[in-house]
Amino acid sequence: MAEINSDYFCIDREYIFPIIEKKLAEHHRPTINLGIGDISLPLAPTIAHAIRNAVDEMTKGTGLHGYGPSLGYDFLRTQIASELYNGIEPDEIFISEGANTDLANILDLFSNDNRIALPDPTYPVYLDSSIMAGYKDKITLLPCTGETNFLPMPPEQHCDIIFLCSPSNPTGQALTRTQLASWISYAQEHHAILIIDCAYRCFIRSEDVPQSIYELPGAKEVAIEINTFSKSAGFTGLRCGWSVFPKTVRAKLKEQNISLHQMWKQRQNTKSNGVSYPIQRGAQAALSKQGLVETRAQIAQYQQSSETLLNELTAMGQRCFGGENAPYVWWQVPQGHSSWSFFDYLLDQCNLITIPGCGFGHQGEGYIRLSGFTKPETTIKALEAIKSLNLNLSSH
Amino acid sequence: MAEINSDYFCIDREYIFPIIEKKLAEHHRPTINLGIGDISLPLAPTIAHAIRNAVDEMTKGTGLHGYGPSLGYDFLRTQIASELYNGIEPDEIFISEGANTDLANILDLFSNDNRIALPDPTYPVYLDSSIMAGYKDKITLLPCTGETNFLPMPPEQHCDIIFLCSPSNPTGQALTRTQLASWISYAQEHHAILIIDCAYRCFIRSEDVPQSIYELPGAKEVAIEINTFSKSAGFTGLRCGWSVFPKTVRAKLKEQNISLHQMWKQRQNTKSNGVSYPIQRGAQAALSKQGLVETRAQIAQYQQSSETLLNELTAMGQRCFGGENAPYVWWQVPQGHSSWSFFDYLLDQCNLITIPGCGFGHQGEGYIRLSGFTKPETTIKALEAIKSLNLNLSSH
Repeated sequence: MAEINSDYFCIDREYIFPIIEKKLAEHHRPTINLGIGDISLPLAPTIAHAIRNAVDEMTKGTGLHGYGPSLGYDFLRTQIASELYNGIEPDEIFISEGANTDLANILDLFSNDNRIALPDPTYPVYLDSSIMAGYKDKITLLPCTGETNFLPMPPEQHCDIIFLCSPSNPTGQALTRTQLASWISYAQEHHAILIIDCAYRCFIRSEDVPQSIYELPGAKEVAIEINTFSKSAGFTGLRCGWSVFPKTVRAKLKEQNISLHQMWKQRQNTKSNGVSYPIQRGAQAALSKQGLVETRAQIAQYQQSSETLLNELTAMGQRCFGGENAPYVWWQVPQGHSSWSFFDYLLDQCNLITIPGCGFGHQGEGYIRLSGFTKPETTIKALEAIKSLNLNLSSH
Repeated sequence: MAEINSDYFCIDREYIFPIIEKKLAEHHRPTINLGIGDISLPLAPTIAHAIRNAVDEMTKGTGLHGYGPSLGYDFLRTQIASELYNGIEPDEIFISEGANTDLANILDLFSNDNRIALPDPTYPVYLDSSIMAGYKDKITLLPCTGETNFLPMPPEQHCDIIFLCSPSNPTGQALTRTQLASWISYAQEHHAILIIDCAYRCFIRSEDVPQSIYELPGAKEVAIEINTFSKSAGFTGLRCGWSVFPKTVRAKLKEQNISLHQMWKQRQNTKSNGVSYPIQRGAQAALSKQGLVETRAQIAQYQQSSETLLNELTAMGQRCFGGENAPYVWWQVPQGHSSWSFFDYLLDQCNLITIPGCGFGHQGEGYIRLSGFTKPETTIKALEAIKSLNLNLSSH
């Protein structure tokens, strides 16, 4: 009889979204939603125009676009390489349906003998897909707490594959140049591979946070960057991203060193027929001069929301982190509260939806995540509601 | 040091497309292409219209579509269930980026202890992705030769997971009701799972070939169908398909029987953020009344091409198969020729591009694949060129 992959049943995690949904179903008043991890502004006109044009083109015999290249169209790979990187070749960029898919599939390239490290708290896909791929007993969690400035730091222990998320979901903090350099050193010493989820790259503003790890020496030998148009250009519903596999990143096969670039190419050629042509045209337009003007205005609005949240809550005496280089603010809950009890309290008292930090890992307990993916008036309403609590929230 | 998945290096197959490309680069005359496995007609207006509308909708605040459901929008799942199946629930249908991806990823659900069976010759993705997933020593090839009417038949040996492709690429033959019933019996007896690639379903015309295995009793307990809009609606460049996981298909986990439906749901929720919203709207339109009128006219044109090829070559005394329920004609090469030598001969003498059968598996040696994905004038030109050879091709 066909046997299933038993690792699917080894995930032991509280799925918070169904719980939140249930609580909301029982909450019979209008809410203010700061829980959102999705974009909230309409698609930029230049992007929409490019997609419509591509679809029009496909209706004409001369503009037929059937199977596209599995690795992505050259026009988009070239645009990404020239607009967003310095020293990355277009053929080191692989177009995908978004960061999620590549982050979940990348373990296909590796043997089960590796040890994986990943942040706690973090975006749950690294952990879940690692477990589903058979690594359940080979995972090192990297605590992201007040002691580490809510960022993952290189462990004492040997690890082979390290997932990093910077700027971080959910803590909103971002790895600085110095911190990334220490990860490169770790990878060099341990012959490890860094897999860096850069989904929130477009929010980076601090001088000491690089836009890409490839700005640092040594990164092109140890790091893979996974990125997306989801947050930078409002593509959550359109689905397009990319991964950077420098040709110089290698891993071991017996006595040989194998290029992961070559393996990913093989994987994608076998397991994908590429990304929708009109969507790739839309992504190209997002990186055009006018596309960047329009999308940067949207990002600025989200940034303003998270900055306002951070500043106002801090002024109220709250301990909040993130918000500067990411759309998320990481709020330490008042003494006596847990993530869930503070979630309940804010929902009950302020009609405010937040995300309990414990949903992102055990070390997220004691925090909630607030989002800047909102309209400015939502942020203001939320802050007014919090102020009206008039409670001594500052008593940590 | 990070270790790679060594199974990526266990594929021992001649990649024919680079060889064909090299030969074409050295062929300095205009060619007639019957090698094509891609659609050749422009996108139907009703589909283009729906995609454009969806993109317009996304530019308005009220029509915002961010992250969609990982399993697909209900509007499309419902449309597929009601238009194409009888007795399949919408939530048993999972929207994907196309058949390729699901066929390659489905082995994620299974333990490596299973034995896999797959046709020879066939679409190479089943074999390659099985090897990459660690099954290299556990694969049974099902010969599709003149003796089996170029279709896979249940083996003597025990197998747990069986890939079937019907209508078949490359042989153009399709499993009849009786033959599918024998596969269902095999699966029942061996507690095996059938994974049926139905990418060419829209070409089925014979009365004795069902549109779906679910028309047969017992299928809903043993079969998963994987399908696509690629060939039925010209979506090769748009990327949308679906897979059917009836809730009643189960496999073993120790003493328990586990629903594969539930596992695929978990996989997709973890490893995918769904398919592009405007593309799903386009797929919905492809199944609308007007969409079906437009796309069926395109399919009819491809069918006419393959039928003409089949009839004319047969009239010339050639042994050809397929072409009735699939866009492909499987041509037995004349005595003394191999797949490659006949490919070379047709290219040299007729400027005709075909696909050597050996590229689809060892049992494909001695055949070439001709395609009906062409304009009628291309088929006529090709046949004129073949006739002009005036050779005794019939001497098998």
